[in-house]
Amino acid sequence: MNMVNIITKKKLGQELTAQEIDYFVQGAARQTIPDYQLAALLMAIRLQGMTDQETTHLTLAMRDSGDVCDLSAIPGIKVDKHSTGGVGDTTTLVLAPLVAACGVPVAKMSGRGLGHTGGTLDKLESVPGLSVELTEDAFIRQVNSIGVAVIGQTGSLAPADKTLYALRDVTATVDSLPLIASSIMSKKLASGADAIVLDVKTGSGAIMQTLEGSIQLAQAMVNIGALAGKPVTAIVTGMEQPLGTHVGNALEVKDAIDVLSGRTTGALLEVSLLLGSHMLVLSGRCATPEEGRALLQEALDSRRGLAKLKEMFAAQGGDPAVCDDVSLLPQPAVIRTVQVGRSGYVAEMDTTALGLAAQAMGAGRVQKTDALDYSVGFVLPVRIGDRVQPDTTLCTLYARSEEDADKAEAAIRKAIVFADEPVEAPPLCYAIVTKDGIERK
Amino acid sequence: MNMVNIITKKKLGQELTAQEIDYFVQGAARQTIPDYQLAALLMAIRLQGMTDQETTHLTLAMRDSGDVCDLSAIPGIKVDKHSTGGVGDTTTLVLAPLVAACGVPVAKMSGRGLGHTGGTLDKLESVPGLSVELTEDAFIRQVNSIGVAVIGQTGSLAPADKTLYALRDVTATVDSLPLIASSIMSKKLASGADAIVLDVKTGSGAIMQTLEGSIQLAQAMVNIGALAGKPVTAIVTGMEQPLGTHVGNALEVKDAIDVLSGRTTGALLEVSLLLGSHMLVLSGRCATPEEGRALLQEALDSRRGLAKLKEMFAAQGGDPAVCDDVSLLPQPAVIRTVQVGRSGYVAEMDTTALGLAAQAMGAGRVQKTDALDYSVGFVLPVRIGDRVQPDTTLCTLYARSEEDADKAEAAIRKAIVFADEPVEAPPLCYAIVTKDGIERK
Repeated sequence: MNMVNIITKKKLGQELTAQEIDYFVQGAARQTIPDYQLAALLMAIRLQGMTDQETTHLTLAMRDSGDVCDLSAIPGIKVDKHSTGGVGDTTTLVLAPLVAACGVPVAKMSGRGLGHTGGTLDKLESVPGLSVELTEDAFIRQVNSIGVAVIGQTGSLAPADKTLYALRDVTATVDSLPLIASSIMSKKLASGADAIVLDVKTGSGAIMQTLEGSIQLAQAMVNIGALAGKPVTAIVTGMEQPLGTHVGNALEVKDAIDVLSGRTTGALLEVSLLLGSHMLVLSGRCATPEEGRALLQEALDSRRGLAKLKEMFAAQGGDPAVCDDVSLLPQPAVIRTVQVGRSGYVAEMDTTALGLAAQAMGAGRVQKTDALDYSVGFVLPVRIGDRVQPDTTLCTLYARSEEDADKAEAAIRKAIVFADEPVEAPPLCYAIVTKDGIERK
Repeated sequence: MNMVNIITKKKLGQELTAQEIDYFVQGAARQTIPDYQLAALLMAIRLQGMTDQETTHLTLAMRDSGDVCDLSAIPGIKVDKHSTGGVGDTTTLVLAPLVAACGVPVAKMSGRGLGHTGGTLDKLESVPGLSVELTEDAFIRQVNSIGVAVIGQTGSLAPADKTLYALRDVTATVDSLPLIASSIMSKKLASGADAIVLDVKTGSGAIMQTLEGSIQLAQAMVNIGALAGKPVTAIVTGMEQPLGTHVGNALEVKDAIDVLSGRTTGALLEVSLLLGSHMLVLSGRCATPEEGRALLQEALDSRRGLAKLKEMFAAQGGDPAVCDDVSLLPQPAVIRTVQVGRSGYVAEMDTTALGLAAQAMGAGRVQKTDALDYSVGFVLPVRIGDRVQPDTTLCTLYARSEEDADKAEAAIRKAIVFADEPVEAPPLCYAIVTKDGIERK
């Protein structure tokens, strides 16, 4: 076995054997294969693709390259949820407490923000005092005690993926379907869940920008789950615009609290109920998504969901009072409201540009080591299809300085296109993919 | 300008601008761009290709990444010759003295052996005492004094190519037409020649194994020459079998001496006369290749070519007596003659495997730092199309040990296929490519 032969095979569009995949995955995990050979292989995979069998084997090899969590000490079927990454997408903070309030354990490992999309861990850390660094034992104890925990990775999960992911970012090989699918699924399988609900985003702010590409990615991950013996439901949802109206770490926590308090409805709640209802079905709590939705709605209306979020914040050392008074969350130096300045209809948004605008304000990392400013970001109440007047609020900026606010205002204005004629609002859900097939909406 | 954007453009099959090419070439020369990013770009170039304009700009940028030799102190038109690399291919040692004997200066920088193909410098160093390390001044003085010098590179020619070439070797990106063409031409243009004759090999021992691929490579290099203002003639010759009958360093020097002494004729002489005649045309010494061939034949028959080789050996510190007594060249411990062992016709050769067999005997380097054994190799008198009997000599092995001879014998037997029915001998020359078009033979 040698790396040049493996690269050569993939360069010529041939299928790699399980042994060849094991060889380079172990080399990536142990860092015994030079980066330049892995980089050449990644580009060959990006341009020549992988068969379903290769993608599945790559996933399993990456899962097995490090620790695999054992959640068997938590009774019941543990359902995880993963999003391919969006802007203003804080469904975890809405659905985890709601699902837990329905009696289904939620033992979730989340990630940090990357590029233009936020990360659940960063949002949680904007709650004063809250820690996401729990040991595996403490994690399991918390889930068994209150039914929910959302933490960072414990141990060394999928170290091969870590090596390859870091290289993909700097070699323009992020946008490869088999590499995306195997990266996500290797980490989900290593984190010990029994079943997985995937939120596959599509549109201008998504990793796959076309609907067909997003459906293919959903299918690839459902197939991997089936071959690994784990039920997976993938829901393709729209990312033509931010999901919630709030973009930024503390702002998104506020958005989740607003939703769980019944003060806010809309896309964030709808998608959270959709994903959560499928989690309840996979957990065996109910038979259909409709039943699941009714259970979640009841947990929302009774505020049992909000109470569960408070319990979780408290259990992880955070201040639960933020759930009653969101002004206890970090606040910025400058708050500025910006008006649309014309009449018409919201026609289009460059969601990636909106995410990058929040990142530039300090809400996201440009370099891996950047410190975040939890207080900054913006609230964008307008949505595609909305009719606007010159004095309609376009956004409220939460910035560190007037200069930052100026830059963000310019970036947001540039990212939003208006039309004179009415525009149809895009759907929230495009398709649901399971091992039984694709249900288009 | 940033490297991820450049890789992304090429990944998507887009054309890079001159500024983008300059950026990564300068980064390669100064080693300021990480190898993994260059590796990803090389694979994207291998799979997405480059336009003629990109290939030319890449060549000129690599030429300008280091020193460019100034041979203007040598009067007349300096014509260089380059081969894409073959087995038993020692045309330089035959044609350089013959061309010089016709009054045309030959100021040639050659390379070391690589992979399965030998290098002129290694062959020259098998002559006792001979040095290929001359300063640029000494090089020019020798050409002005005796009309010929063959040396290693002076200064730092095309350092960007050096970085990229080393990476290509270990990332399976050697077989890319724009990368091959720009690598060869950048070094040739940097070495200061006024015109260039290229020997582009085709067949089982060549870098391009198909005729069409070889013709495309020839065209690409002729185009680059035209755009750089240097006349280039590319001759596509066969490498379905070793060119000369001798493979190995001292053995190939002996083969060249045998040819220049009139003791040997055949493919090595024919191809040397063909390439040499085009060198004489490009130098302005004569009007047609036919005239050039007559001049070279006269230099051969009069032994003025052999005398010129002796002069060159002496000028570079080597023992000129080897030209009169080839037994003064290094001799091996074991010489073994092997018979064919069957009757029939020589049908096919795996020329790469034959080159690797010589390499394994010690004639070539497996690692860059390997020392060579100049004495080893083999003589292979049979050629494709030859009728053989069981007692026909298949080869004579020149080995360091009986064990090495056993291994080489097995490898050579495996590399040569016999047939019961007559087989046609392949042509020596397939096509001649100039800026005026392709003349197929």
